[in-house]
Amino acid sequence: MTADQLPAGFESAGVYCGVKDNKQKFDLSLFVSDRPCSAAGVFTQNRVCGAPVVISRERVPSSSARAVIINSGNANACTGERGLEDARWMTELTAQLIGCAVKDVLICSTGVIGHFLPRNALESGIPAAAEALGSSSESFLNAAKGMMTTDTFPKMATREFETRGKTIRISGAAKGAAMIAPDMATMLAVIMTDATIFSDEAQRLLNAAVDRSFNCISVEGHTSTSDTVLLLANGAADIDDLQPDELDKFAIKLDEVCQELAQTIIQDAEGAEHLIIIDAEGLKDPEDARRIARMVADSPLVKTAITGADPNWGRIVSAVGYAGVDLEETDITLSINGTKIYEQGMPVEYDEAALSQKMRDNRNVRIRLTFPLGEHSLRFWTSDLTAEYIRLNSEYTT
Amino acid sequence: MTADQLPAGFESAGVYCGVKDNKQKFDLSLFVSDRPCSAAGVFTQNRVCGAPVVISRERVPSSSARAVIINSGNANACTGERGLEDARWMTELTAQLIGCAVKDVLICSTGVIGHFLPRNALESGIPAAAEALGSSSESFLNAAKGMMTTDTFPKMATREFETRGKTIRISGAAKGAAMIAPDMATMLAVIMTDATIFSDEAQRLLNAAVDRSFNCISVEGHTSTSDTVLLLANGAADIDDLQPDELDKFAIKLDEVCQELAQTIIQDAEGAEHLIIIDAEGLKDPEDARRIARMVADSPLVKTAITGADPNWGRIVSAVGYAGVDLEETDITLSINGTKIYEQGMPVEYDEAALSQKMRDNRNVRIRLTFPLGEHSLRFWTSDLTAEYIRLNSEYTT
Repeated sequence: MTADQLPAGFESAGVYCGVKDNKQKFDLSLFVSDRPCSAAGVFTQNRVCGAPVVISRERVPSSSARAVIINSGNANACTGERGLEDARWMTELTAQLIGCAVKDVLICSTGVIGHFLPRNALESGIPAAAEALGSSSESFLNAAKGMMTTDTFPKMATREFETRGKTIRISGAAKGAAMIAPDMATMLAVIMTDATIFSDEAQRLLNAAVDRSFNCISVEGHTSTSDTVLLLANGAADIDDLQPDELDKFAIKLDEVCQELAQTIIQDAEGAEHLIIIDAEGLKDPEDARRIARMVADSPLVKTAITGADPNWGRIVSAVGYAGVDLEETDITLSINGTKIYEQGMPVEYDEAALSQKMRDNRNVRIRLTFPLGEHSLRFWTSDLTAEYIRLNSEYTT
Repeated sequence: MTADQLPAGFESAGVYCGVKDNKQKFDLSLFVSDRPCSAAGVFTQNRVCGAPVVISRERVPSSSARAVIINSGNANACTGERGLEDARWMTELTAQLIGCAVKDVLICSTGVIGHFLPRNALESGIPAAAEALGSSSESFLNAAKGMMTTDTFPKMATREFETRGKTIRISGAAKGAAMIAPDMATMLAVIMTDATIFSDEAQRLLNAAVDRSFNCISVEGHTSTSDTVLLLANGAADIDDLQPDELDKFAIKLDEVCQELAQTIIQDAEGAEHLIIIDAEGLKDPEDARRIARMVADSPLVKTAITGADPNWGRIVSAVGYAGVDLEETDITLSINGTKIYEQGMPVEYDEAALSQKMRDNRNVRIRLTFPLGEHSLRFWTSDLTAEYIRLNSEYTT
């Protein structure tokens, strides 16, 4: 990613300040717009949620957001009143440094839960991050790094499109679901654009994009306390409010950024040996497609079969059967990596050894389930379940 | 278990007939009553279900059932019209041999799915089983063995109570959820009693007992295509229709039989190192308690934490948070093996090393979640998730 692929009017930074023990890592990120932004957010559905989620949720949608401050290494979740005070204080300090109202600073935290934030580390760290702000690609990379917990690589995506002779850019950074004890999966993403969009419109577009990306991935079906996706639109591309056809283009590009970030999260899932892409097609309504795809994605029996390169149609078909969708066995047809193995309720003859070898040789496994029930489809991404996942999640490394 | 603990008027048998390759194992079981029984059944909720489920479901509740025929090694599921014909034929052959109507024979199958039954093996096997019928404890043990797939031990439970100077007995045999590829989890149980109960009453009592036992266990949350629990009541204890207070006693004993069988299934779960007992207490309604207990039970993050003897309250509390129950963080209090580690939304100080050692030393881990929201409670059983489970479910042994 180069600096000219990033949206205008934004700066970012990532620094180490001492929340994490490991000084080789960054643990604080700051994203700042030089002018007020329309801001939208989508947050965890968990009833138990971190203090930053409580605070950011109150502050979006917004038409005047200026910054996002994120620390990693401590999720500031399950920390009661003091956690809320700490999160508020982080946004106050950030607001002072960049010169804006406190309510215009959004906040995320990710990492261990149940511990109070180390204020002294952040007290020097936040000014250091503000000092380090820049519009280079390295600044953005550092900000992506500052959000990481056990991610093995930083996650970024960018798209652009031309309109009225100018360019609109959308760039996002995310961190994934990687959960070495005692962390939980936290998924964070910050997406910036220099398009001009009303905040309500931004929220609508973000909801739709998240529904087709971050809500279509699952590592093990455990919803975190801190999941947050933020969209900031600052209008610095200097194009008046987007018109309907421009909004359509914007929505497509926003989808692409979100889907690319979502896929990198799955690619970095702990212990994963296969990326599993599940297509549920031909359903009566979109929720049916989601239920089926998710039930297949979350089945440990399906995941372990794929770990073993086993085209086990029985585990997949039976997961479809208990997804709570009104269908008959004879409605189900299944292909894996292009080979049809089950058709209208009955197994079909195929070369099992060849398909198994194909699954062994390819990192990507495509499960395609087709139904004659309607026009709705959904794509879902997940990872397989390996002994390495168990090791990472059952053995203490601290 | 001795012969005089078994209900009067029933005989059972288990034989090897050639459905399985391994001649050291039994693969066919038969349970027969010498007189008509009230019969009740509870079956898988999966829309994809085996032919035996389709047939037995049509035949209960019944006031004239006489036998249950069960083969293991082949689930006769996803086998279309021919599967239905094969299952019907098995009940016809059984009915001929014991001299009853075809509709009075119930049937279950468990094992690999998607393969047609070997009729020639069963053609000689079913008469051999009828020949072997007996009322000894060994006959019952053999019948329990004939239902096993990858179970490592046969599963039986028995209870009795006195009334009007006579004894009523309830005995059950079950097979568990053990799923070496390409099998799926199948849970079967046959429960026999010599009490006199109307079939509608039998169905009501069985529904309630299953709800508190087999529906409160989970190995990995994947619903099989063949799950079946049958209750046969033949009245051979020679006591007229049970009165309300006797029915209450009967219900308690039936619960105990079902719960003991359910627990043995979890004890035999593949690769399990811990039996996890989850109590959700103080909820507004029973479904809330079930949702919470099951969400905790099915979380791979909770399971792997327990594999690692890690009292990880964050994973448990966050699973509660996404169970879809209307509650606040401050409503949650959590103990593990008697040690309170989280109270009303905040972690509490405790000796983590001591508790972890206790979890390492005990096979049973008790997770107790208490809420101030109502009077309803539920107990749920599950197993932990180990590298051995992954090995068993991802590596082909065939």
